[in-house]
Amino acid sequence: MKDDRKYFIGVDLGGTNISTGLITEDGNIEFRLKRPTEAHRGTEAVIDRIIEMIVETIEKGNQTQKTISGVGVGAPGPIDRFSWVITESPNLGWKNVALRDIIAERTGLTAVLENDANAAAYGEFWLGDGRDVDSLVCVTIGTGIGGGIIYEDQVYHGATGVAGEIGHMSIDPGGRRCKCGNYGCLEAYASGPAIALRAREGIEVGEQSVISELVDDDLSKITSETVYQAVLREDLYAEEVMKDTAKYLGVGIANLLNILNPDMVVIYGGVTQAGRYLFDPLRNEVLKRAFRLASGKVRIVPAELGDKAGMIGAVGIAKGVLELQT
Amino acid sequence: MKDDRKYFIGVDLGGTNISTGLITEDGNIEFRLKRPTEAHRGTEAVIDRIIEMIVETIEKGNQTQKTISGVGVGAPGPIDRFSWVITESPNLGWKNVALRDIIAERTGLTAVLENDANAAAYGEFWLGDGRDVDSLVCVTIGTGIGGGIIYEDQVYHGATGVAGEIGHMSIDPGGRRCKCGNYGCLEAYASGPAIALRAREGIEVGEQSVISELVDDDLSKITSETVYQAVLREDLYAEEVMKDTAKYLGVGIANLLNILNPDMVVIYGGVTQAGRYLFDPLRNEVLKRAFRLASGKVRIVPAELGDKAGMIGAVGIAKGVLELQT
Repeated sequence: MKDDRKYFIGVDLGGTNISTGLITEDGNIEFRLKRPTEAHRGTEAVIDRIIEMIVETIEKGNQTQKTISGVGVGAPGPIDRFSWVITESPNLGWKNVALRDIIAERTGLTAVLENDANAAAYGEFWLGDGRDVDSLVCVTIGTGIGGGIIYEDQVYHGATGVAGEIGHMSIDPGGRRCKCGNYGCLEAYASGPAIALRAREGIEVGEQSVISELVDDDLSKITSETVYQAVLREDLYAEEVMKDTAKYLGVGIANLLNILNPDMVVIYGGVTQAGRYLFDPLRNEVLKRAFRLASGKVRIVPAELGDKAGMIGAVGIAKGVLELQT
Repeated sequence: MKDDRKYFIGVDLGGTNISTGLITEDGNIEFRLKRPTEAHRGTEAVIDRIIEMIVETIEKGNQTQKTISGVGVGAPGPIDRFSWVITESPNLGWKNVALRDIIAERTGLTAVLENDANAAAYGEFWLGDGRDVDSLVCVTIGTGIGGGIIYEDQVYHGATGVAGEIGHMSIDPGGRRCKCGNYGCLEAYASGPAIALRAREGIEVGEQSVISELVDDDLSKITSETVYQAVLREDLYAEEVMKDTAKYLGVGIANLLNILNPDMVVIYGGVTQAGRYLFDPLRNEVLKRAFRLASGKVRIVPAELGDKAGMIGAVGIAKGVLELQT
């Protein structure tokens, strides 16, 4: 019997991991790969890995290039929507990479490029918790902090495709240095590496925590994951680090509510493992800072699709773009 | 000869002044009134003044209630777009005022209510510098700081009508207290009263400035206008106050560029009198903080329509709403 379903390849390129998936046109993932990005190996090496993973996903998913309708790619950093170039990605160390055309050329497939956070936002809007709302903001927390805005059922791109770069909102103009070169960006306080750094700083000056055990007293090994694990073990210091993180995020999200006033805010990333230790203080800070008319009805929730939101959303967007073209 | 042009009344309700205008359907102001708001006299007194001014504008503009198609009102504070109630306006000291229905009832005219900054944004988009762009953010600086967002030719209202409340973006979470009850809002640093307060604080601790002369050494009389006048006289301290103000505004506007990525930012209010002493350091701060893809092509300009943008925009919006209804 002929399989006449349409298949897409979804790619989620992150600062830490690359995920690829064989995904049906209605968003089901049939096969999935996940590998470290290893951005330090350089742009070419990362691109080679993406191509290899796409090819492997098609093969191991028992498809061929001919049965794939297209590739949807979510990638960090602002994307120039005229040239389809990733203009700058501090977390990958990339500048001016024409990722869409490179993938299309090397795979022979049509590729659609979208900012990773926009892709995650669209995924949650299409098939996650956001499927019943008109507008949402997705806050992606990983190596960096990104944001995707859905308004009136569409990704909000702004004039040149930068919209939603909420990680580089200054919340303390003279504060911590950010990888982007600036000072006081939300990302410098609440990204994965920022959470790890703050935990380490506290332990270095004497805070007692199970975190030290988890890394065998090698504090350079602390990652945000270590902090989340410590929270799950009810470690008081790790809870305090999460509470601080939640306050910073609360300031940023309150700003987004006052500016964008969405129906829903979706938090995406490992940080949601901290559960109520994240969400309770975050919601409190938002209620303190945002207009009641904006905060009263908003739902602030973890991504329902988890780390699959990005690749699913990238496929949803690719599907929409390819339908418009045919 | 019968005058068959359509006329509207535009109302711009501010924390300091109320303006009304007899305005043609293509946005020409034929007659205009401006009076102090005197919000301290209470909600009823302010509403009475608005009604009197509408009636007087119709009469002195040689019109009658019958020749007026409707009233467009721009008012501060978030507006509930279901009940058309101004839910809270810190600068007027208002809570839950059903201004649209009160005006309609007392004038016998159809009234359309819009947030004042949204109205100014729409005015600039319709007939000001923004007439050639698809998206803009209007930053209104007066007693408070408001914002209006135009995206894809429409006012961006968000889920419940709060969108664009950029004055209550936290730019320093532990900083100055804001009238809204919170800490570190942009408004607490760069609104008219905030500019006056910072100037006074400096002079109180010994800064030399022509400002002291302008208020006959009664520092309690310093207003933002005094500071702008001193800047125009090339007073070095006043220039420094404006430079600080510009930096705070630059942080806020860089955040807006990273989040919303508009084609244009329009600055509306007396503060634009400071000219290059405002715009030069503001643009520098924005270039330092926003993604190049967002800051590279954006134009940051004073409102072309000046203080008329609000009433013109309110009429533009009213015209659109009434056309949809008929």
